[in-house]
Amino acid sequence: MTAIPASAVETLRWRNGVIEMIDQRILPGSIKYVRCDSASTVADAIRNMVIRGAPAIGVAAAYGIALEALRLKDTSPENFKTGMDQGFDLLAQSRPTAVNLFWALNRMRTLLSSLDSLPQAQTAEQLLSEAHHIHEEDVRINQAMGEYGAALLPDGARVMTHCNAGALATAGHGTALGVFRSAIADGKRLSVIANETRPFLQGARLTAWEMVQENIPVTLITDNMAGYMMQTGEIDAVVVGTDRVAANGDVANKIGTYMVAVLARRHNIPFYVACPLSTIDLSLPTGADIPIEERDITEVKGFRDCLWAAEGVSIRNPAFDVTPAELVSALITEKGIVPNETLMAGGLKAFVEQSAD
Amino acid sequence: MTAIPASAVETLRWRNGVIEMIDQRILPGSIKYVRCDSASTVADAIRNMVIRGAPAIGVAAAYGIALEALRLKDTSPENFKTGMDQGFDLLAQSRPTAVNLFWALNRMRTLLSSLDSLPQAQTAEQLLSEAHHIHEEDVRINQAMGEYGAALLPDGARVMTHCNAGALATAGHGTALGVFRSAIADGKRLSVIANETRPFLQGARLTAWEMVQENIPVTLITDNMAGYMMQTGEIDAVVVGTDRVAANGDVANKIGTYMVAVLARRHNIPFYVACPLSTIDLSLPTGADIPIEERDITEVKGFRDCLWAAEGVSIRNPAFDVTPAELVSALITEKGIVPNETLMAGGLKAFVEQSAD
Repeated sequence: MTAIPASAVETLRWRNGVIEMIDQRILPGSIKYVRCDSASTVADAIRNMVIRGAPAIGVAAAYGIALEALRLKDTSPENFKTGMDQGFDLLAQSRPTAVNLFWALNRMRTLLSSLDSLPQAQTAEQLLSEAHHIHEEDVRINQAMGEYGAALLPDGARVMTHCNAGALATAGHGTALGVFRSAIADGKRLSVIANETRPFLQGARLTAWEMVQENIPVTLITDNMAGYMMQTGEIDAVVVGTDRVAANGDVANKIGTYMVAVLARRHNIPFYVACPLSTIDLSLPTGADIPIEERDITEVKGFRDCLWAAEGVSIRNPAFDVTPAELVSALITEKGIVPNETLMAGGLKAFVEQSAD
Repeated sequence: MTAIPASAVETLRWRNGVIEMIDQRILPGSIKYVRCDSASTVADAIRNMVIRGAPAIGVAAAYGIALEALRLKDTSPENFKTGMDQGFDLLAQSRPTAVNLFWALNRMRTLLSSLDSLPQAQTAEQLLSEAHHIHEEDVRINQAMGEYGAALLPDGARVMTHCNAGALATAGHGTALGVFRSAIADGKRLSVIANETRPFLQGARLTAWEMVQENIPVTLITDNMAGYMMQTGEIDAVVVGTDRVAANGDVANKIGTYMVAVLARRHNIPFYVACPLSTIDLSLPTGADIPIEERDITEVKGFRDCLWAAEGVSIRNPAFDVTPAELVSALITEKGIVPNETLMAGGLKAFVEQSAD
């Protein structure tokens, strides 16, 4: 394992005309970057989980569009248009649940439509500039979210998180882990309880690793220990990220989040969701409308080359679940906190529209 | 993997003066038996989880005592007595949570005390005969429990189970899986949803394997999918085993059972516990008094030689949790069903005493 300081870890970075993404399938044992030079290679990286985490997927998709334009800029106008359309389609089909993907693609599509009169080379440069902008903006948004969220956590809090909503799930700082980083920057003592998050083990591999790199106290448990830890009074709050929030405040996030929310409610532990506004999908009335990805069953048979499941067993592999708004104590956004009362009163839409002003 | 018919799988068997136990650490990839010829080797097999499951541990401990007596029968009376005492101690210290271990040791101790006047060789034979008796009795008890439990499950039921409370956790038939086997023998259609049960993966390796061997439809999920499956209406009932039940009906079982029970309650899904009377510990008023084993943290770092956790992370590994009686729809015993109302009214003690008559 290559030892590198946390600040040197970049989830994705622009280098010599391509986007490089840290390969999250092999972390933390190996630190390697995968290079992508087209919409198709970015779509593959998203589908195969080289890169994951809703905000990071959004940023990657924006770069995928820019790369496709750069790749096609010297071809005929017909070829450029068809190729760009195919690029959008490929990226849109890479993963279904995280809405940030579609949000970023829409933003790139809107810009592309507005550039009709420009030469293709300049269009490509403008798209790249927009991708860089989305990239930088994501870090600023996470920092703003972190500040709002940090205020919710008492000094000394023992905070559970599920999956990885960290720097590795974003362009930097992180959503849920960004809240922890901001709280610590504010001088609070904090300890993190990371659920390992089967089957891809984002908690054991990514969240634990990020926290260890920065000397933030972190304890790893298997997902099924979450109830025990709450029962024994060892958890003060839960903070998770999200892949899509419906207009009524229902939250789609990594499989198992719902279970943690139900347990938190039973034990009167606040359950917070760190949620950039780009993750809120006002077009969907409730969480029942959010598409839930079912991934390849080999993920559940074991991990990497280590397979343990009995041969012949059927397997399910839903990658996300939906936590109803009633179980969400508050959404933490870059424009402030949306408390449960606001969600329950149907006020999320108004909050989002007001924030956009 | 050696293909052998299910009926040929014996959790533990007496062969040529030693006890052989199927090595549950390497199932289902390899089928090998570990031979034990003393209290100390049986204690090691229990501690290292060559054999696991509360009823199986009880049977193994009884054989451990018989083996120790056979080993020491030709030594001096002082040596025999001291050795037997040490054997009891070693076995009692092997694992703390499953009460069947202590129940079996008490039964062997009581018999040994009553045989004071016999020659040591005859004492050893009597102890071996008692171990055989406990072994056979366990199968009969499971079959009786299975019949009572089967009546609770509707035709076509999709039943979730956690960990392995199967033939491999007992002398045969199983407690929770015994209920499924009996329901199917009664002509009911049934499908099983097996939680993989991190960190030792008893669900993925043992329960899935047992069900596949008998062509019982079984679907494997990761533990954190339990909530999703209930939310989407795919679970009709839960049946689990138990390692110790307190006098008030609180149930200790494999880590994660509490989480499943909380989710089942939220979704109004009945939560049944298959529980031989030997698992009920009337000496403990509530579940808070049940000792919870914390096992080696390497189990959580990965599985076998496949380690994935970030280096430097703290780890917890409680092997059991306690489900409060209020969440238990009924205990299924070999003497009949104990419904939630009886538990809540403090009636478990009376039921056990009446059953012993």
